[in-house]
Amino acid sequence: MHSRFLQTCRGEPTDRRPVWLMRQAGRYLPEYRAVRDKTSFLELCATPELAAKVTLQPVDLLGVDAAIIFADILLPLDAMGAGLSFAKGDGPRFEHPIRSREDIQALVRPDVHASLGYVFETVRLVRAELNGRVPVIGFAGSPWTLAAYAVEGGVSQAFPELLRWSYEDPQAVRQLLDLIAEVSVEYLHGQIEAGAQAIQIFDTWGGLLSARRWREIALPALSRMLESIPGEVPRIFYMRGSAHLLDVLRTLPIEVLSVDWRMPLDEVRQQVGPELVLQGNLDPCALLASPDVIRAEVEELLARGRGGGHIVNLGHGILPPTPPANAKAFVDAVQSAAP
Amino acid sequence: MHSRFLQTCRGEPTDRRPVWLMRQAGRYLPEYRAVRDKTSFLELCATPELAAKVTLQPVDLLGVDAAIIFADILLPLDAMGAGLSFAKGDGPRFEHPIRSREDIQALVRPDVHASLGYVFETVRLVRAELNGRVPVIGFAGSPWTLAAYAVEGGVSQAFPELLRWSYEDPQAVRQLLDLIAEVSVEYLHGQIEAGAQAIQIFDTWGGLLSARRWREIALPALSRMLESIPGEVPRIFYMRGSAHLLDVLRTLPIEVLSVDWRMPLDEVRQQVGPELVLQGNLDPCALLASPDVIRAEVEELLARGRGGGHIVNLGHGILPPTPPANAKAFVDAVQSAAP
Repeated sequence: MHSRFLQTCRGEPTDRRPVWLMRQAGRYLPEYRAVRDKTSFLELCATPELAAKVTLQPVDLLGVDAAIIFADILLPLDAMGAGLSFAKGDGPRFEHPIRSREDIQALVRPDVHASLGYVFETVRLVRAELNGRVPVIGFAGSPWTLAAYAVEGGVSQAFPELLRWSYEDPQAVRQLLDLIAEVSVEYLHGQIEAGAQAIQIFDTWGGLLSARRWREIALPALSRMLESIPGEVPRIFYMRGSAHLLDVLRTLPIEVLSVDWRMPLDEVRQQVGPELVLQGNLDPCALLASPDVIRAEVEELLARGRGGGHIVNLGHGILPPTPPANAKAFVDAVQSAAP
Repeated sequence: MHSRFLQTCRGEPTDRRPVWLMRQAGRYLPEYRAVRDKTSFLELCATPELAAKVTLQPVDLLGVDAAIIFADILLPLDAMGAGLSFAKGDGPRFEHPIRSREDIQALVRPDVHASLGYVFETVRLVRAELNGRVPVIGFAGSPWTLAAYAVEGGVSQAFPELLRWSYEDPQAVRQLLDLIAEVSVEYLHGQIEAGAQAIQIFDTWGGLLSARRWREIALPALSRMLESIPGEVPRIFYMRGSAHLLDVLRTLPIEVLSVDWRMPLDEVRQQVGPELVLQGNLDPCALLASPDVIRAEVEELLARGRGGGHIVNLGHGILPPTPPANAKAFVDAVQSAAP
């Protein structure tokens, strides 16, 4: 398959840089909201025809260079028995927060084909529907980030329960991460068998840890997960707030490092060396400004991204109030730029 | 006045490192809650006798090496007419969010002695009460952080209104920051005249900006504010999530740089050079673990903090669920350690 996205992942030259947006299938699109109005978020994830439909919307509407499966990083935790729900307007909630060694013991080791097979079916539908137009990205959360939600019981500003536990009993937390990683490996393999052509791991909360503690606690389970991915499938790792961790992130078994908007790509490049492909990193808030501002910011971003492989993306998920025309202006500016 | 804290700020040697805690007068202390139960947060700030009382509690209960005035960084915005309130359990709210050039025009330039004189009175009471036991730290928020709350109308995960505006009309945002800085300069001078012996500037949200944008937008007003502080008063600058900004922070007109818990102090020291005094940076979540864990973490912290001036503190404010005995274990571990 000829794909600028996959070629760039592999470090091969392309005529121009590929572009996609984190959370490109989402609430900023009226076409997404029209689907979502008729179903709950979890039902949408669990209905392959609808999940495939919203996955494809940004490919058709924006012309992005890759599709990413519509799903949620927390689905595997639900399959493990943590009891996931989304209250209207709120973030995720877990009925059974995991806060002790006994809670870890009580988690189930799910048959991913039985409990998460709907995601694999979404991948198959999207892959068939796209018919080679653009590649399909599968994804999962990092073990640390999944544990963050599972221990806290939902989203949090500072994740005090998780962090307290990680100081008090780091072995138990590592055990939880190991278990999440084992399930995640099977989950990712299911996505790859169904047709996912690249894998992105989202580590939203890894940046809460100092470099020493990230190495000690979060890294081992993550590494095993990354190493399990077959060689022909490019691995992308995204972390928010990773400026203090670049020295360790450069050693991960990945092809692409996706960074947030805080550090210009040329400075990231200096720290991680020439080989890693970089992905990112326009501030998602820039897409709330006018198309003229967006085009100027894209020009700056493209200049900073020279000197190595670069997949253009945002530094974090697109914000719900973003006008779709602004997202389109972003994609167009990248695709029409000189290489 | 003999003070380990002030001597360390000035780069002078001391017999041991000084220690205090950000938000040390606060909800984790039952003695604070006993005062707070009878009054609202803003009334507590505005009643010098009570504000002085809670300011002194951690000095008496924990034996910290400095007192920081009990107040809120948002008080000057209220004096400027933005209409601050705190709903129970919620964060701050502004009745009149500032989102246009007209909104900036509508702000008032307050007489700080008339509208914020209660803070100066608190400083005087605390200074008299302490009678030289430990020094008194005054403080203010950075212009960027104050603008963040004022534009958003309260606290936010991503501050999209502020950031959108900063892309769309950076000059207007700079104008708002300049105005906040002018008022803050008078506010800090009032605190210093009343007896504050050091000044800390809190920049909670500066880390949202990339280095380029921080330099362009946030830095000019902040620099003017820092430069206005008389030479005999040490200046401490705190920023959360500053790992990507150390190159510019090292050039600030300050004596002490206070960093969050993410980057070990020896790595910060490598980047900022030998002259700046560093303040921090125990993870506040570590104080939720047992005293044994806390002592081990303090030992690690003290080792990383060698090689330059070091004021021991947390990397962010102490968390409300922290057991007071754990805060005491932290202070004791620092004060009983070998120099």
